Amino acid sequence: MPKRKSNMKTQLMKLIFSTVAMLTLVVGGAASAKAQEPLPSWNDGPAKQAILAFVKEVTDNKSNPKYVAPEDRIATFDQDGTLWVEHPMYTQVMYCLERVPSLVEKKPELKNIEPFKSVLSGNREAMAKLPMKDLEKILAATLTGMSVDQFSAEVKEWLATAKHPRWDRLYTELTYQPMQEVLQYLRANGFKTYIVTGGGQDFVRVYAERVYGIPPEQVVGTMGGTKYGYEKDGKPFLTKEPKLLLNDNNAGKPEGIHLMIGRRPYAAFGNSPGDRQMLEYTKAGDGPRLAMLVLHDDAKREYAYGPAQGLPDTKVGTFTQALYDEATKNGWTVISMKNDWKRIFAFEN
Amino acid sequence: MPKRKSNMKTQLMKLIFSTVAMLTLVVGGAASAKAQEPLPSWNDGPAKQAILAFVKEVTDNKSNPKYVAPEDRIATFDQDGTLWVEHPMYTQVMYCLERVPSLVEKKPELKNIEPFKSVLSGNREAMAKLPMKDLEKILAATLTGMSVDQFSAEVKEWLATAKHPRWDRLYTELTYQPMQEVLQYLRANGFKTYIVTGGGQDFVRVYAERVYGIPPEQVVGTMGGTKYGYEKDGKPFLTKEPKLLLNDNNAGKPEGIHLMIGRRPYAAFGNSPGDRQMLEYTKAGDGPRLAMLVLHDDAKREYAYGPAQGLPDTKVGTFTQALYDEATKNGWTVISMKNDWKRIFAFEN
Repeated sequence: MPKRKSNMKTQLMKLIFSTVAMLTLVVGGAASAKAQEPLPSWNDGPAKQAILAFVKEVTDNKSNPKYVAPEDRIATFDQDGTLWVEHPMYTQVMYCLERVPSLVEKKPELKNIEPFKSVLSGNREAMAKLPMKDLEKILAATLTGMSVDQFSAEVKEWLATAKHPRWDRLYTELTYQPMQEVLQYLRANGFKTYIVTGGGQDFVRVYAERVYGIPPEQVVGTMGGTKYGYEKDGKPFLTKEPKLLLNDNNAGKPEGIHLMIGRRPYAAFGNSPGDRQMLEYTKAGDGPRLAMLVLHDDAKREYAYGPAQGLPDTKVGTFTQALYDEATKNGWTVISMKNDWKRIFAFEN
Repeated sequence: MPKRKSNMKTQLMKLIFSTVAMLTLVVGGAASAKAQEPLPSWNDGPAKQAILAFVKEVTDNKSNPKYVAPEDRIATFDQDGTLWVEHPMYTQVMYCLERVPSLVEKKPELKNIEPFKSVLSGNREAMAKLPMKDLEKILAATLTGMSVDQFSAEVKEWLATAKHPRWDRLYTELTYQPMQEVLQYLRANGFKTYIVTGGGQDFVRVYAERVYGIPPEQVVGTMGGTKYGYEKDGKPFLTKEPKLLLNDNNAGKPEGIHLMIGRRPYAAFGNSPGDRQMLEYTKAGDGPRLAMLVLHDDAKREYAYGPAQGLPDTKVGTFTQALYDEATKNGWTVISMKNDWKRIFAFEN
């Protein structure tokens, strides 16, 4: 009997210790999560505060009328100039231009035809000045006419080696660390994060999951048609067609959001007039909505363009004075890269 | 001292009891989950076994080469005839026909114009015989030309009262309980479930979340364009335009899947030739893929149409002999409603 009693005691003590260990783990976990403040690459200021206040308001208290149910928590992000560098040229345009030599190899008849001839000459200045209709010819020729799988493989291969001329780093390294933190912070608070880009939907999907943690089905972009067909052995495949379904810029952004998501976002982030309608549409919803614009005002660490600098419009989407005025009028928060961001890139110290 | 010792003992006993209570909850929860076998409305047979074996294969063991990462677990479901009743007419077509009187009220000039005149006469037989081009006119007139919010509100209102003539029940009650269980079972195993329907994307989105647990962004359907504009007070809104972006039938299904999801499904469910390409595309992927076809062979509990009955093709998507042959050839599993399903609807005993 005493033996048995002692055994029982040992069992009980083990149980107690394991309980205490469990409690320690739980409490310790909560403490370490608290120690990691959100948005560490942001300086304290109105932009950071706007994000924190918005998230608190929509998630904190179910009985608050401003509370937003988890399934409705949609946040949309423009890509070029909002999540990563868009200067001196959109990454996708760089890709298309650099694909021209291998395109001409397969179709030598293009060699002496404009705009392919100019691109082959390698004159970057001439390329930068290509009129839109020539650029569209190059985009159509390099982004369509192959299977979706072949296209993905080609983009993936290019991204593994192509580098930005200024930083001599892969384009996928040139994402803004503070915006990566916003993506993570929103997701940690139950938001589904989407990219809503003027860039090609299929192009961005190749790297969005790896680079931003955003899966292909959460990338909304300029959409081209595909065509279902069969290989000789009967295996089905999809070919990228030169047919535009939706230009996901300007009014196309809310239209693309309705098409692909079917819900109005609660938060939207952009940087150029191409994002204006997305921000308007987001803000026009009931309850608390967050609309933010990234202002490129940091010539030293990145680039400065737009109204704060009095710079002329450049070829890439420019944050114009008119957009700045609309932001002020509509309660959109402007993010100053210079003042709001402690660092721009993850590779900085 | 004895007092204190006794207090400590009480504290310890409380701790033990709460631990035991916690353990009981955990173990009890697991036991009750086990007691709830998956797919309870399915009879044991090859169809149920195919689903269980597929899910086990792709989720069971990470080191198994057939294991599928959670982010890749995509399952697509046709709606009409696969998830709910499609006879005697697609629900959406019923909706459009029943909208005609209120449409004519707003546009009296349509009153004496075909096909609106025929529809107003209320002759169901004549309506059932409307040629496709007339049906398209009715669809365009009743599905477009209003804001997306107004459209959703109208559909919601209609669904709250419109009833199926045979069962005298709301259309949304006529979902197949065994398929609801497949949706739940796949989701419980990490799958994202999508509807991929020939029906209107915006129409199905109105009820898909409530009826199937499928959110709007996971509804792929026939897609129309929208147009961004402003109300007099400056508030932006989207208008449904009579512009077809994608007919999500036949080859349109894999094209729509690529557009909206950007990944090939691992499992696909259909019931008609309109689903053929979706099933082919799914099956053509690497590794284990599940393709299933619902065969309507239960005239008593639902309807019988298609090859098993030697019935002629009807207006709604029909499981043809050719499809049956392709299923056999390609290793698709045919679900017999009569033999594989214990019950068809949730309201049955």
